[in-house]
Amino acid sequence: MSSATSAISMRGAGYYSANTAGAKTVIDKAGDLVAEAIAALPVETGAGAFALADYGAADGGTSLDLMRRVVGLVRSRAPNRQIAIGYTDLPHNDFSALFRLTQGLLGDATKTPLAATPELYISGVGTSFYRQLFPDATLDLGFSATAMHWLSKKPGPIADHVQAVGANAAERVAFQAQAAEDWETILAARARELKPGGKLVVANFCVDGQGRYLGNTGGVNMFDTFAKHWRALWTAGRIGEAEYRAATFQQFYRTAEEFAAPLKNPASQAAKAGLRLDHVSTHVTRCPYAKDFERHGDAAAFARAYVPTLRSWSETVFAGALDPARPAPERAAIVDAFYGAYEAEVAATPDGHAMDYVHCFMSMTKESRG
Amino acid sequence: MSSATSAISMRGAGYYSANTAGAKTVIDKAGDLVAEAIAALPVETGAGAFALADYGAADGGTSLDLMRRVVGLVRSRAPNRQIAIGYTDLPHNDFSALFRLTQGLLGDATKTPLAATPELYISGVGTSFYRQLFPDATLDLGFSATAMHWLSKKPGPIADHVQAVGANAAERVAFQAQAAEDWETILAARARELKPGGKLVVANFCVDGQGRYLGNTGGVNMFDTFAKHWRALWTAGRIGEAEYRAATFQQFYRTAEEFAAPLKNPASQAAKAGLRLDHVSTHVTRCPYAKDFERHGDAAAFARAYVPTLRSWSETVFAGALDPARPAPERAAIVDAFYGAYEAEVAATPDGHAMDYVHCFMSMTKESRG
Repeated sequence: MSSATSAISMRGAGYYSANTAGAKTVIDKAGDLVAEAIAALPVETGAGAFALADYGAADGGTSLDLMRRVVGLVRSRAPNRQIAIGYTDLPHNDFSALFRLTQGLLGDATKTPLAATPELYISGVGTSFYRQLFPDATLDLGFSATAMHWLSKKPGPIADHVQAVGANAAERVAFQAQAAEDWETILAARARELKPGGKLVVANFCVDGQGRYLGNTGGVNMFDTFAKHWRALWTAGRIGEAEYRAATFQQFYRTAEEFAAPLKNPASQAAKAGLRLDHVSTHVTRCPYAKDFERHGDAAAFARAYVPTLRSWSETVFAGALDPARPAPERAAIVDAFYGAYEAEVAATPDGHAMDYVHCFMSMTKESRG
Repeated sequence: MSSATSAISMRGAGYYSANTAGAKTVIDKAGDLVAEAIAALPVETGAGAFALADYGAADGGTSLDLMRRVVGLVRSRAPNRQIAIGYTDLPHNDFSALFRLTQGLLGDATKTPLAATPELYISGVGTSFYRQLFPDATLDLGFSATAMHWLSKKPGPIADHVQAVGANAAERVAFQAQAAEDWETILAARARELKPGGKLVVANFCVDGQGRYLGNTGGVNMFDTFAKHWRALWTAGRIGEAEYRAATFQQFYRTAEEFAAPLKNPASQAAKAGLRLDHVSTHVTRCPYAKDFERHGDAAAFARAYVPTLRSWSETVFAGALDPARPAPERAAIVDAFYGAYEAEVAATPDGHAMDYVHCFMSMTKESRG
């Protein structure tokens, strides 16, 4: 995951990947689409290095195995072709963790480091994917997972909830419009970066055909639970009204139709740049912590494992909503109390809690012209 | 500056550039060689982006103005040509500081951020320059300043000094041999990265024709002063013998002849790869703090400004030599005492203290063949 402004950030140095086993499962699942895309590329005959990008890669941990698979697929057909991987994320991302992880200086010491692959060149780009990140027509393959739900800006407040899924109708319209504009911007930039014939495979959070989305797949709604515990801090007088209202995820979960829209509209920038939709589908990936709980049945252990994974990507939103005039230890105590209450609820009534992932998988081709 | 192993590192986030005004002066001075190199490149007709690398760039601060100059030179001849800058350094380098600095999120807010240049693409490569860092034949221009004196490994101990300039004859031979081998490795990797006709401009610490080197230009010898104060900690019983001996800069200052050697030897890897020497010269750059002192004459102020710039690049060597079994606050106190003693000496007897830079500037071309 990646955020789109410096106001929103993740905790650094390995914390992210270790707490996002589910995100890795999604990426591995998207690997089949990536393999299909590579199968259609002229790997043997292409000029120069086979170049790919991973947009919103964080520390690169969750996509490491996918990158290994890509390298294997390319080298099976072109054993000597050089490969260049460009990992992108926001400027404040921990790129040092990324370089150390890919070089085996951090993380799983039992595996051969990705960077030990002969003739593989790894770089980082610390720039928002709302900008073009690579020169024109330089990428064979673009990939992104669980990143592009972050909007380029917050289009307005959400007064009585924390995420657009709980916004009122007028608030929702503003988020939806921002998401549509942002998606056009993202696709247009990617279309410029791709070589003619290049492929783009993305796996993004979505609302699926049954109305399911992250943490809302039939059980307890995760975002409603966030909102409930945040509201409880307000009603208890622990935080002020402005702090209550300020906790808003700068995100939007698009539907498959919304994702496909620019590619079906010949007047869109992406379509005019030659980007064509090859595949779109939605996928639910079971929460690994809820799955573990089904096996072990220990509610307290589930709560202790589950809430940190939520915290890893949500904490900055709640911490950032607090009045900066409060001393740092006070802010930390409020955030601890917030996640503590969530954890206590899960421990007391664990059934139905799950951060199941709901993704829209897409594959696109930039048409060769002339 | 950049170091060659993870055991040696710099202090992060802006500290480096702010304390290395002299390093920036050197880079600006090398800008004329860079401008000459660009003048000889087919900027108007080259395919794709104009691609350059800055090897051992740290946070990118000291080369920012040079990069602005390069962009200006390229765009004056090819106003629409895309430009790609790849900044390299070791994996633990603070690349986030680099991205924030180039995007204007850190540093001088009065200047237009480099990254705001239209059609400019910035990336980071967190890999040692002892490896090839970019795919074959992808760079128009390589640049590096004050980085390649760091060796790939420590070839042996220096028993009674901290740097090879104070080594005994046998110790010196080992460092010199390692430096020769390392320089061949560096040039061979750069030769592969350059496009045919591409240019490489480097400014490296050296021993010049008069035997001058960093901090040794006729006044008090800086490395001897380091060695003296470190020895004093040992003789005072503040550090142990092993700690005294372990403080060794993994560096070597080559002569201009040593720098030129592989390019004059047709059997070297670099020469075989087509790398040809166009220019070599040595330059002394006055210590900005000593210059300031000449003007203001305040010895205490000089010492307070001067010693931190030494500390910025040397601290990890001394801190790293201390027994890790010592509690961290104790180690910090020893390091503070060490630089404190150096500062007290400068304050008491300021004359002759100066970290004048002594550089070897080189310009090379990768010959176009066939």
